[in-house]
Amino acid sequence: MNKDGVNYRIEKDSLGELKIPRDAYYGIHTARALNNFNIDKSTVNINLINAVVTVKKAAAMAHKRLKEIDIKVCDAIIQACDKILEGKFQGEFLVNPYQGGAGTSTNMNVNEVIANVALEIINEEKGRYDIIHPIEHVNFAQSTNDVYPTALRIASIKLIRKLSKSFAALQETLQEKENEFADIIKLGRTQLMDAVPIMVGQEFGAYARAIARDRWRIYKVEERLREMNMGGTAIGTGLNASQKYIYIVTDYIQALTGFGMARSDYPIDTTQNMDVFVEVSGLLKSAAVNLMKISNDFRLLNSGPYGGLGELILPSMQAGSSIMPNKINPVIPEMVAQVSMKVIANDSAITTAAYSGQLELNAFAPLIAHCLLESLELMDSVVNKFKDKCIKEIKVNEAKCKENLENSLALVTAVVNYIGYDKAAEISKKAINEGKTIKEILKEEKLFTKEELNKILNPFGITSPGTPGEGGK
Amino acid sequence: MNKDGVNYRIEKDSLGELKIPRDAYYGIHTARALNNFNIDKSTVNINLINAVVTVKKAAAMAHKRLKEIDIKVCDAIIQACDKILEGKFQGEFLVNPYQGGAGTSTNMNVNEVIANVALEIINEEKGRYDIIHPIEHVNFAQSTNDVYPTALRIASIKLIRKLSKSFAALQETLQEKENEFADIIKLGRTQLMDAVPIMVGQEFGAYARAIARDRWRIYKVEERLREMNMGGTAIGTGLNASQKYIYIVTDYIQALTGFGMARSDYPIDTTQNMDVFVEVSGLLKSAAVNLMKISNDFRLLNSGPYGGLGELILPSMQAGSSIMPNKINPVIPEMVAQVSMKVIANDSAITTAAYSGQLELNAFAPLIAHCLLESLELMDSVVNKFKDKCIKEIKVNEAKCKENLENSLALVTAVVNYIGYDKAAEISKKAINEGKTIKEILKEEKLFTKEELNKILNPFGITSPGTPGEGGK
Amino acid sequence: MNKDGVNYRIEKDSLGELKIPRDAYYGIHTARALNNFNIDKSTVNINLINAVVTVKKAAAMAHKRLKEIDIKVCDAIIQACDKILEGKFQGEFLVNPYQGGAGTSTNMNVNEVIANVALEIINEEKGRYDIIHPIEHVNFAQSTNDVYPTALRIASIKLIRKLSKSFAALQETLQEKENEFADIIKLGRTQLMDAVPIMVGQEFGAYARAIARDRWRIYKVEERLREMNMGGTAIGTGLNASQKYIYIVTDYIQALTGFGMARSDYPIDTTQNMDVFVEVSGLLKSAAVNLMKISNDFRLLNSGPYGGLGELILPSMQAGSSIMPNKINPVIPEMVAQVSMKVIANDSAITTAAYSGQLELNAFAPLIAHCLLESLELMDSVVNKFKDKCIKEIKVNEAKCKENLENSLALVTAVVNYIGYDKAAEISKKAINEGKTIKEILKEEKLFTKEELNKILNPFGITSPGTPGEGGK
Amino acid sequence: MNKDGVNYRIEKDSLGELKIPRDAYYGIHTARALNNFNIDKSTVNINLINAVVTVKKAAAMAHKRLKEIDIKVCDAIIQACDKILEGKFQGEFLVNPYQGGAGTSTNMNVNEVIANVALEIINEEKGRYDIIHPIEHVNFAQSTNDVYPTALRIASIKLIRKLSKSFAALQETLQEKENEFADIIKLGRTQLMDAVPIMVGQEFGAYARAIARDRWRIYKVEERLREMNMGGTAIGTGLNASQKYIYIVTDYIQALTGFGMARSDYPIDTTQNMDVFVEVSGLLKSAAVNLMKISNDFRLLNSGPYGGLGELILPSMQAGSSIMPNKINPVIPEMVAQVSMKVIANDSAITTAAYSGQLELNAFAPLIAHCLLESLELMDSVVNKFKDKCIKEIKVNEAKCKENLENSLALVTAVVNYIGYDKAAEISKKAINEGKTIKEILKEEKLFTKEELNKILNPFGITSPGTPGEGGK
Repeated sequence: MNKDGVNYRIEKDSLGELKIPRDAYYGIHTARALNNFNIDKSTVNINLINAVVTVKKAAAMAHKRLKEIDIKVCDAIIQACDKILEGKFQGEFLVNPYQGGAGTSTNMNVNEVIANVALEIINEEKGRYDIIHPIEHVNFAQSTNDVYPTALRIASIKLIRKLSKSFAALQETLQEKENEFADIIKLGRTQLMDAVPIMVGQEFGAYARAIARDRWRIYKVEERLREMNMGGTAIGTGLNASQKYIYIVTDYIQALTGFGMARSDYPIDTTQNMDVFVEVSGLLKSAAVNLMKISNDFRLLNSGPYGGLGELILPSMQAGSSIMPNKINPVIPEMVAQVSMKVIANDSAITTAAYSGQLELNAFAPLIAHCLLESLELMDSVVNKFKDKCIKEIKVNEAKCKENLENSLALVTAVVNYIGYDKAAEISKKAINEGKTIKEILKEEKLFTKEELNKILNPFGITSPGTPGEGGK
Repeated sequence: MNKDGVNYRIEKDSLGELKIPRDAYYGIHTARALNNFNIDKSTVNINLINAVVTVKKAAAMAHKRLKEIDIKVCDAIIQACDKILEGKFQGEFLVNPYQGGAGTSTNMNVNEVIANVALEIINEEKGRYDIIHPIEHVNFAQSTNDVYPTALRIASIKLIRKLSKSFAALQETLQEKENEFADIIKLGRTQLMDAVPIMVGQEFGAYARAIARDRWRIYKVEERLREMNMGGTAIGTGLNASQKYIYIVTDYIQALTGFGMARSDYPIDTTQNMDVFVEVSGLLKSAAVNLMKISNDFRLLNSGPYGGLGELILPSMQAGSSIMPNKINPVIPEMVAQVSMKVIANDSAITTAAYSGQLELNAFAPLIAHCLLESLELMDSVVNKFKDKCIKEIKVNEAKCKENLENSLALVTAVVNYIGYDKAAEISKKAINEGKTIKEILKEEKLFTKEELNKILNPFGITSPGTPGEGGK
Repeated sequence: MNKDGVNYRIEKDSLGELKIPRDAYYGIHTARALNNFNIDKSTVNINLINAVVTVKKAAAMAHKRLKEIDIKVCDAIIQACDKILEGKFQGEFLVNPYQGGAGTSTNMNVNEVIANVALEIINEEKGRYDIIHPIEHVNFAQSTNDVYPTALRIASIKLIRKLSKSFAALQETLQEKENEFADIIKLGRTQLMDAVPIMVGQEFGAYARAIARDRWRIYKVEERLREMNMGGTAIGTGLNASQKYIYIVTDYIQALTGFGMARSDYPIDTTQNMDVFVEVSGLLKSAAVNLMKISNDFRLLNSGPYGGLGELILPSMQAGSSIMPNKINPVIPEMVAQVSMKVIANDSAITTAAYSGQLELNAFAPLIAHCLLESLELMDSVVNKFKDKCIKEIKVNEAKCKENLENSLALVTAVVNYIGYDKAAEISKKAINEGKTIKEILKEEKLFTKEELNKILNPFGITSPGTPGEGGK
Repeated sequence: MNKDGVNYRIEKDSLGELKIPRDAYYGIHTARALNNFNIDKSTVNINLINAVVTVKKAAAMAHKRLKEIDIKVCDAIIQACDKILEGKFQGEFLVNPYQGGAGTSTNMNVNEVIANVALEIINEEKGRYDIIHPIEHVNFAQSTNDVYPTALRIASIKLIRKLSKSFAALQETLQEKENEFADIIKLGRTQLMDAVPIMVGQEFGAYARAIARDRWRIYKVEERLREMNMGGTAIGTGLNASQKYIYIVTDYIQALTGFGMARSDYPIDTTQNMDVFVEVSGLLKSAAVNLMKISNDFRLLNSGPYGGLGELILPSMQAGSSIMPNKINPVIPEMVAQVSMKVIANDSAITTAAYSGQLELNAFAPLIAHCLLESLELMDSVVNKFKDKCIKEIKVNEAKCKENLENSLALVTAVVNYIGYDKAAEISKKAINEGKTIKEILKEEKLFTKEELNKILNPFGITSPGTPGEGGK
């Protein structure tokens, strides 16, 4: 990076010495990690970094209260954490997310940046670890193996709460559409084949309820994420961490996050097992399934506009073709589907990483963190895009809905309970052969008075339980 | 099948006539399905068949009470259902699980077998559908599209309850081992590298807690499965099904299953969306992750017996090699891992099938049913095998545990809080260079009295929170 | 099974004695495996069993020629293999496919059945292993670890050849349809939106070419499957197997299978690495992608028949609904899609099993075998069903094709090179506003003579390269 | 971005006008895409952008030669392409990879940047599309639907060639280790259990051969990627693209890439079907399987160093723990495994996107491009890291190899052919009971002379085919 030795400071660890850029707030452990894992330009999710910083702050607060570390050092660390949480040092956190080491490099990166920011706060030079040490002070009574899973849980909860609100807003928007389209009747289709009538609003109502489940699942899973193994140190047994510290650091993490984080009653389990992240990702997968279903339905119903179903009119977001004038494509649902596919793929990586853990630790937690936080962020973004740039502006082509319904034989099912299957089938065939609609044939056949027929074919009767046209069902 | 026309009866449907073996209880719809889908020898899961039969019985009971169908017909249908549930007609349900038609063939298979068994009960010939009709009577006010998802939910709950109990028993067995091995100290490993000490019992305790979560998840998800779209008919709108019937059939299903099944408050959603099955499968995937982790740990800890870790001794289940005398392999954990992989693979099929649903129905529900019920049954079986044929008989090689721990440098961490990192590192190096254990060097160095050292290296202190050897932590 | 001790014989192995049903051709190793792995009713794929038997026969022939085993024993073994290959002993091979032990139980099951059938042939009682021994004779100079992977390769090649032929036939059928529908013009759609014209035949031509690639891939991958590790024994080093035997057994396997099997030049690799099965499964996944695309297209184009695209008419295979008269569903494409999803899911299990191998062996080869052979068989069956029960009978609804095309604005693109984008866009808008077709507006506008217009809108010109209506392009 | 209207220029498309930052080289289509798809900070892979630019250059060269576009415009476009390929305009390509629209936004982004760079070259203001038009000139005779798949193929081939070379280098390094460790004998393990002896070099030889297959597969698949649908325009029929242009642009693409790109003989197929990318990704998955197996083996063999297998010594890359002095973790293999998991997960997304294509186009090609190019780049990077930062520096702990081998019973298999199974088993048991090695017991038993025993237990004999100690095998 720098060409001149003067611009470096020297740091050392158990493997030897290394030159560190003088301006860098990170230190030798980070420098080695940068060099070991620089396989592409991606970096650790900032939400995870911030959660680690929050944990460090809580630890320093605990050490301060227990007087386990000099109060000035604690204060400098606490202030440094606050500064970092303001977002000023993002360029210091460049370690690759595919890092080996079970998150050690992320933990050490944070330890080092905090130490050097803290040194700066007390007007000391960077690298003066004899005064504030990344391990001896910032990481005191901690291990990557308790800090990292704890931070991942905190970061996940933060994003889950955001996503939960986004699902709520999406559900609300779908329900607005449910109301808006409540009395527009259309053809319902099963296996893509003409079936029986349904209201456009009912279709949106079904989407709204699916999303409501996703919201509820995501909301409920937070409970399982609140368990922390803080104080478990290397393998969850708590070696070298005092009981007092464990209780107090828990309180501070609770206070700093506002999330109701609690001490695991078996930190050895919480240290080594990643199934809770698989559970969360599995629920995101369920949500992806619903989003994909909805976006695919929109694309189908919007197809055409002339040679397709053409029942919905999605808003025009951009020109669709350089070769075909006036072509507009359903780009937002297409994006939603792709993000859903990605979330499902991420679930595969998370699952594999989770079962690949061995004995007292899972070495692949960094992949879990990378994929899970990406899924949470992508899904949140795309849910909002879907709502704002597509669903809110959807319109119905009522003429096409009417045409498709009346061209179909769907209405004949409404009279089955009156005239029986055989007669109904006969009427269907007549409609097909004579190229007429069911309504027309029913009128011709005079099986019902005009009023009866109106009552039977009343859109609301025909799309709710019971034999259409009958009174108290 | 038969060579002689006399052994057939003729049935017909909208596509024409077909010869049906005279002895067959199934009819023309089943016959066509057998011919359309016979791609391999697998058949629809019997739990699903039985759940459909249960739904049919409840419907007949409702029709009887509402007098919607002749009481004698209802009684015959109800008796037929009971006979089938006794398991006597399994050979009549041979339709392939990969069937197209969203489950129509399974529904019709059941309708036809019930009709013909019912005819037999009232001493009528098979095929006399003018008396008892598979559609007009057995399927009355129903559609595949409400019967099938309802039955899948019932079958799933049945298996989920079984699995939940199996997880409970597995958890208990693991906790017995937690107690049995509570005071055997061994080397803990992170990223497969020597770390710090742990009790063998603590390792089993962590496994037990992971399984406890699986049990709890599976137990809780039942709630979401209880929602039924019965009465929704073709697309959930309830066309041609009376409100009275809907309420009563729900009550009967509740009574017959004992499962607290409830009417969906939006059956259109429940008809078309399969996300709840993705949720269930996702939780099975989480459980598979834990089972795989545990079984892989067992294989690692059992490795050797002489050239591996050799700390656990799995029971000998069968001779392991035809070429190497006395070789015994960990065949049960290997089976557990393979079933786990299969459950994870099934989750992929379930997810794909679920998001491939379109508009008012999911055409691929049969694949969801096939894979989900298979996963539930396989996991239940393998959990019990794992418990009975492996975990219960696991023994610990205490000598090897001791050897591995003492050969390692793990014990040095216990004195870090007394002598500092630098001195601890120095002692480690001395042990390495002189080929001695940490204990030996500590004794030589005389940094502690013999009593102090015994206190510090006390197995219970070293594997629980705090600085080893300190009093009130 | 039997209640009376007299009906058993006693066998013993390194773990002790066991009663074996007197009639059973299998022995103690199989009996233990049946008891260890009976988690469901599935059994090892018969193609794999037969391939193991073939390998055993070749080994016996080699031993006979090299006089390593008594000639009478060899002959009895060879005859026993032939009898088993005739299919008479399928009930003896009931070990579960999820078996632990890397295939040892399958190998021993075959060894034992061969030994007992051979004993029967020479009029000796079952269990007289002092005369013909499952291990000492049938398994001589072999190990599960060379026999099993070799057999899996043989079984795979057999099924691959079958599948390759099925793909060829499917391709041919698609090309027949390409010709049959060569001059029926229709609307082409991109992203489900109206695009530009295409011939129905061209659509089938594209399907045919996709399937041609699948055929070619499957055909070519056979090469990699031909490498065998026979003679490698336990870990591929060949311990205790003579070079002469290795060469001769290879020749016999070649002769018996007719497959050009060759000795691996590094059997240690061939013993432990399963990537070739991942490769094969990956190609099946590519084929599944194409089959799913085609079947989904068929379902879309067949949708309706009145309220959908309605351009293709799939053959009616069975009645589609018990509640909606005359409804017919695309059940064959739905089955094809589900099998495709299953093949993709199996690929996940195969991949996981393959990378879970450790050091000198992959303990999870049985799962690979189970899933791969299932995928090969299912795909072969469904490809033939798809061809015979769907594609061959597909018809085109020409009126609907014409209507969809003319209702759309697709034809305007044909005149863009003549009148420019702006004018073309103007004409589109006029058509929309006045509810007329592009053709009608073009006629009204008189930008072209009637002949020019006919030339420009000529179906063949408009669906092949160049500006429509121009001569030599 | 800008607050002042003066800093914008106005552009318009079929949806209306938009302000574009005056300095931006991109235009209105890009601006809309930026706004529609900005769900996270990721951007389209630069290799894909460059490949699109290359295609554009070839098209301009073709138009120049055919005089279809003014020569000055062509020249400006060609120069602009060259400038962009030098890497100066990366900040102009910020559209999100999850974009809807089947790649239209990427194509238009490139069209616009080229147009504006070309305008600058001829000293015109940005936005003067009357002079050089993104669609009328840069995109002339093209469609996203032929440009985008073609570019993806070109970008894939470029990365595949790079990866192929990296695999070759990895293979070579593994073979160097094969030679280096050719005569170090160790314990071979099957199913993690002690088996029979093997050379350390043989283990590396097996890894080398697995990687050789990956190299060969990747190398061979290039053929299928060379087919281009250039000239197919919107749906592959070639509407509005002249035959001459199609031939010439193909030649230029060949010349510019040096890749032997060829015109598809059925561009309709090549436009809509994505199976070739599934094939490529499937092969990357096979490679991931091998990389994961190797990296997992390394972690196992390196485990300890004192309480594990400890046979390999991986190089120390960074300090492993803040709490445990001297702990070093196998961080490079852990990274390799995580990238492998990611590649396998990407394969899932690619597969899903591929089978989700409908009719004449696959709307999800952008996801395929994003994941496939990411997999190719990540795998290439990690293969080189693995080679340079791990494998090259691996050492063997010969003492531990010897100890593990001699402690085990593996050597007894070497004498089975001399003394028979029963005696061999007896010797094993004696060794176990007396706590001695097989060698010691064999010496005590005096079944062989000292010379015979040395010959039999000769490391080379025992790890190659035949009965150890025998002469001409």
